[in-house]
Amino acid sequence: MDKDLVSMPPQAMAAEECERRIRKLVDSLRRRKLDGAIITEGVSRLYYTGFESSAGTLLIDAVEGPVFVVDFRYILMARKAMPFAKCVLQKSGAPSCVKRHTRKWRTAGYEARMSVSSFDRLKAQLGHVESWTAIDDTISSQRAVKSKAEQAILRRAVAANDRLYSYVLSLIRPGMTEWEVRGLFRSGADMVGQGESFDTIVCAGANGAECHHEPDLTPIPKRGPVLMDFGVLLDHYCSDMTRCISFGKPSDFYRKIYNIVLEANRKAIAKLRPGMTGEEVDAIARKHIKKAGYGDAFGHSLGHSVGMEIHEGPNFSPKEERVIKPGMVITVEPGIYLPGRLGVRIEDVVLVTRNGCECLSESSRNLEVL
Amino acid sequence: MDKDLVSMPPQAMAAEECERRIRKLVDSLRRRKLDGAIITEGVSRLYYTGFESSAGTLLIDAVEGPVFVVDFRYILMARKAMPFAKCVLQKSGAPSCVKRHTRKWRTAGYEARMSVSSFDRLKAQLGHVESWTAIDDTISSQRAVKSKAEQAILRRAVAANDRLYSYVLSLIRPGMTEWEVRGLFRSGADMVGQGESFDTIVCAGANGAECHHEPDLTPIPKRGPVLMDFGVLLDHYCSDMTRCISFGKPSDFYRKIYNIVLEANRKAIAKLRPGMTGEEVDAIARKHIKKAGYGDAFGHSLGHSVGMEIHEGPNFSPKEERVIKPGMVITVEPGIYLPGRLGVRIEDVVLVTRNGCECLSESSRNLEVL
Repeated sequence: MDKDLVSMPPQAMAAEECERRIRKLVDSLRRRKLDGAIITEGVSRLYYTGFESSAGTLLIDAVEGPVFVVDFRYILMARKAMPFAKCVLQKSGAPSCVKRHTRKWRTAGYEARMSVSSFDRLKAQLGHVESWTAIDDTISSQRAVKSKAEQAILRRAVAANDRLYSYVLSLIRPGMTEWEVRGLFRSGADMVGQGESFDTIVCAGANGAECHHEPDLTPIPKRGPVLMDFGVLLDHYCSDMTRCISFGKPSDFYRKIYNIVLEANRKAIAKLRPGMTGEEVDAIARKHIKKAGYGDAFGHSLGHSVGMEIHEGPNFSPKEERVIKPGMVITVEPGIYLPGRLGVRIEDVVLVTRNGCECLSESSRNLEVL
Repeated sequence: MDKDLVSMPPQAMAAEECERRIRKLVDSLRRRKLDGAIITEGVSRLYYTGFESSAGTLLIDAVEGPVFVVDFRYILMARKAMPFAKCVLQKSGAPSCVKRHTRKWRTAGYEARMSVSSFDRLKAQLGHVESWTAIDDTISSQRAVKSKAEQAILRRAVAANDRLYSYVLSLIRPGMTEWEVRGLFRSGADMVGQGESFDTIVCAGANGAECHHEPDLTPIPKRGPVLMDFGVLLDHYCSDMTRCISFGKPSDFYRKIYNIVLEANRKAIAKLRPGMTGEEVDAIARKHIKKAGYGDAFGHSLGHSVGMEIHEGPNFSPKEERVIKPGMVITVEPGIYLPGRLGVRIEDVVLVTRNGCECLSESSRNLEVL
């Protein structure tokens, strides 16, 4: 059997990479004159520690480095996984270790992604902190530009998604329900990676006009639109792709709409340059679709960054002022949705380079399948 | 093939049930003199509307009823799914529909589960609201007591989890890796429900001492501890169960620890009564384990409520002051963890009744399997 089809547990990020990430955050804390940062959100903990858990607080002291505070359920694993951080057991009912290990802090960075109630608790607990600064922008900017190690994983995740699509194409037949096709994507994603990066969307016929349609018992038509949006999760990184097909010869109308969307996708990928804003990239595809007469039928953004989360920033969108930089990994997914008739979306993942971008998604864009 | 083994899409909650839930929330808004509530969190939106989406804001006006504001991607589906609510399209860049539909409000309920940044944006946008009240406790109390319709789904979800366990028991063999066994749970959960309600935990040998161990390539021992913690998601409701087994005759020590945990589980289930606090129920099992000499090795809570989320309140825990009521569905999961040796946890889901509780989990608690 192809070894790429044997499911393996996720590989943890190398400790050196996590240490580099923490050092970079520390640099920015020092520039912002913060004594430290309190990392509370799951994906951020995973990004800076390489350790996945449903609980725990990562304290990054701008002078003394990282301390990971976690409960009984995770402490053994945390100590094994994080040679670079001090791991402290928070006993239930015992005085707060977070308080103890931040006692010298007067200025603290926090994540405004955390819930209002968690932040209220934290502020009440850490009365010694005099000023709180949201550092979500710092973390998001850091995560937006992917390191060489991250680019390598994302390439593998996108390649796994290409394999997933081939696998499903080899099995999908008219008459199967959307739900059954979704099942193929799910089981396939477990073979080529560690499952889906989001719930697969499968739309038969006019269901494609509901961008985020939930797969139901509608059968795949013998002739007519089929839209599939799917991604593989591999070693904690996400891939994402959308393809549209037709069994047998598509109608002239379907082909016409498909070609407009494909041209919008190709044009955006060809013209995208680092230094443009997300808005400028979005406009390339949007203008093309508008000119073809379907501007109102393209109601979402052109794309979103992809990494440890399926939706990250910056986006390609009409309101995105952030500048696109080399090393960013972003989707390009124009679409046209015509209620009662059809929906078409063609989505690829691109890696922004120094001069333009590289399209990582290599799957066939053939509309007609046998 | 057994029809219970044919995967089906999740069934949406009946509109009447959602309307009842909204009416109950409205009653409590009026009691608290709030003009309305702004429901922003995914699971709460799903609870009150029966409609699953990754975006959208549900406005519940204490006088005029519900309005669902959502973007282009979901508006068609929302209108189909929610005959009882006005569904409004929020166009990108257009004035806020949330502002327009709350313009008469002066006092608003909000979810403190929302992120600090979302709440800051909301407050800035809705300058006309003079006072904000967190209503998480109201929503949580409402969700904690399951309706007859919810109890019926939870029974089916727990029964599906029992079938999942039988399925895995029929296939698991010594020498398979933890990761492979996790794969059986995942594929099985797709057959009996709509996937896992959380990432399955499989621990071979001493890995069981890491309560939340991530399945890896450790082989299932020919003789020795195996711990499995798993749940099925069915029609948006979660089940949860933990079982420990041994292939062949377990060591005397494993059996001894197993029996202490089993007795703690049975005792808590037998003595649990509505009217007790979560702390009192927790203490039943904790005292038993302490008396047996392993108090320090039981470092987590006895249980958590289960519903649309895998972890809901109230809990059975040393700090839980909330009172247990009929209609609550809660796990009972004592454990003993001895690093380097083994871990044992036995977890069932119980439905609190008027006089005690009914244990919904029916799977075998036999330690030794063939």
